[in-house]
Amino acid sequence: MAHSFSFEVLSQDRETRARCGKLVTAHGEILTPVFMPVGTQGTVKTLSQDEIRAVGSQIILGNTYHLYLRPGEELMQRAGGLHKFAHWPWPILTDSGGYQVFSLAALRKIHENGVRFQSHIDGSTHEFTPESVVRTQLALGSDIMMVLDECPPYPAEYGYVKKSLMLTTRWAERCLHAWKNTEPLYGHEQTLFAITQGGIYEDLRRQSTEELLALDFPGYAVGGLAVGEPKASMAERYLMGVGKPEDIVNAVNLGVDMFDCVIPTRSGRRGQVFTARGPLNLNNARFKDDFSPLEEGCDCYACQTYTRAYLRHLFQAQEILAMRMASLHNLRYNHRLLQAMRDAITAGEFASWQKKFESDYFIQSKNDNTL
Amino acid sequence: MAHSFSFEVLSQDRETRARCGKLVTAHGEILTPVFMPVGTQGTVKTLSQDEIRAVGSQIILGNTYHLYLRPGEELMQRAGGLHKFAHWPWPILTDSGGYQVFSLAALRKIHENGVRFQSHIDGSTHEFTPESVVRTQLALGSDIMMVLDECPPYPAEYGYVKKSLMLTTRWAERCLHAWKNTEPLYGHEQTLFAITQGGIYEDLRRQSTEELLALDFPGYAVGGLAVGEPKASMAERYLMGVGKPEDIVNAVNLGVDMFDCVIPTRSGRRGQVFTARGPLNLNNARFKDDFSPLEEGCDCYACQTYTRAYLRHLFQAQEILAMRMASLHNLRYNHRLLQAMRDAITAGEFASWQKKFESDYFIQSKNDNTL
Repeated sequence: MAHSFSFEVLSQDRETRARCGKLVTAHGEILTPVFMPVGTQGTVKTLSQDEIRAVGSQIILGNTYHLYLRPGEELMQRAGGLHKFAHWPWPILTDSGGYQVFSLAALRKIHENGVRFQSHIDGSTHEFTPESVVRTQLALGSDIMMVLDECPPYPAEYGYVKKSLMLTTRWAERCLHAWKNTEPLYGHEQTLFAITQGGIYEDLRRQSTEELLALDFPGYAVGGLAVGEPKASMAERYLMGVGKPEDIVNAVNLGVDMFDCVIPTRSGRRGQVFTARGPLNLNNARFKDDFSPLEEGCDCYACQTYTRAYLRHLFQAQEILAMRMASLHNLRYNHRLLQAMRDAITAGEFASWQKKFESDYFIQSKNDNTL
Repeated sequence: MAHSFSFEVLSQDRETRARCGKLVTAHGEILTPVFMPVGTQGTVKTLSQDEIRAVGSQIILGNTYHLYLRPGEELMQRAGGLHKFAHWPWPILTDSGGYQVFSLAALRKIHENGVRFQSHIDGSTHEFTPESVVRTQLALGSDIMMVLDECPPYPAEYGYVKKSLMLTTRWAERCLHAWKNTEPLYGHEQTLFAITQGGIYEDLRRQSTEELLALDFPGYAVGGLAVGEPKASMAERYLMGVGKPEDIVNAVNLGVDMFDCVIPTRSGRRGQVFTARGPLNLNNARFKDDFSPLEEGCDCYACQTYTRAYLRHLFQAQEILAMRMASLHNLRYNHRLLQAMRDAITAGEFASWQKKFESDYFIQSKNDNTL
């Protein structure tokens, strides 16, 4: 195969754990820390693939649970994988479907072999096993695949979380085995990341991380809602589902390399817009006659083309163009934020950059109750 | 003022009444016959202004009723008119709001002076008069304004329709007077078209047309649902609200120059796609594994980028990108259709072109019950 997966730390901040790196995948290189837009059903909501790329997206995420149910594995294989199906020739990460089974599906039943569940679309019964989710992700052809994990509900008791993380470790080992014993379908290499669990219990998060580190995965994601401190390892560190600017900045400080979240697009569809001076809610009446762009100085198409007043009018009228433009701007905002952090880390100035970011970002939020 | 409105017939077909023309407005020239996408609330649904232009739109339509209610005349003036507000520097036609008052608003009450109605948004009470709709359209700054007309419900009795068209004539005269005695607000010329009525009664349509022709408007629109035969005049002929390909072709044959309709975008949002071989419904299961473009040979972004299988998947998943792409293609289809007719008329081959169009277009519709 032409490429082989690698991750290299290019620059390590001295005052914090923040670091810059380069991830090499079969569909291109990725500079970290990186934000990955979420394309649940093979589309980043409201946006075209060219728009997603144009705002600076290096890699997008697809959801195995959704794509397994619709359009399904067989069609995905006939299409030649998700890159071709969705016309996105750049890197793709797919989750394993574990989180969605635990958050969306009905009547799920966990057993040692896997998890049975009913589709949220038509109630049909399905089963995910560590081996099946690797197979589905091979059909999707994603550059980075994720292991099947159990996501315990929050709050969960210590005893349950402990049992659960040990099951997640056994599932991770089976995923690793399935991956190592299967050829990819489309001639490009696919890699596999583990997911640490352990809920809010620090010793359990440590146990989960240590058990999984011993299996030597190419990358590690931090699952569940609590933010664990990533261990000092040279593997990729991916914090799942975190997307608020202030949380991303804090996690980069702690050494996280990858992020994904629906916040830029979901908030965008509701009229929330991120700026360096804090978030704005375009539905607010004060934007009615504000003929400035969403964010002064932003180079995105929305800011270069439309005014707050026009986009607020479109939100009031529930017009789709408004959702598109706010989603586009929010993704561009996130990519600019990550770019600024990469630059600050490379320049050895991350800590002072972070102080400045926080002082700018929270000024408006303090003075103006917009959200 | 830099431009003055003009319309010139460039080419007249010898076998039919089809003709090509050139319309000059303050925001650019328009080759006719022309299709005008509908941008009811200052946006052609789901699409950006650059996309609308890129598919070949020469002029778009805005709805005075909607824009009067929201964002309102005062904001429109502060924005410098609809061209600036919506970032569309090319020609705009606005309707008068008459049709929407009669189709959308509640508790409308017609009297000699105008029509009182309740907003469909918040129930507030408003009044449109011939003078007020000219004033609102001056605030919008549209290149082509329309007179206030009464649109009788269908079916309506002969006596009612006769009284109604005479009121419409009196209102047209008042609009003309208001227009001629007011300066435009933004330094560019705005013109005014009349609307003929008369329902399904041929003699009443003739009476309406003759009364309005006597007032010597720069252009005439055919209102109501029935397709009247446009009179032999050198003024612009605009058939309102007609948008099915076969109906557009028939009307061009009868000498119509301008069309507007929500069909390309409304049908597109529902998964209906127009092609030279008839319409398709992408929700149909047969497109599940169809990896060809929406229409072979089409140069639009949707056809150049995505497959039917992918877009069908997005429709099944109710994703906005699918609505965008089908809307974009349908507008491009319509503009290509009008371009083909302009070419055929110029080449003196409209009748044979029409025969070929109909034989291609109805083949699929006959064989395949897709809509």
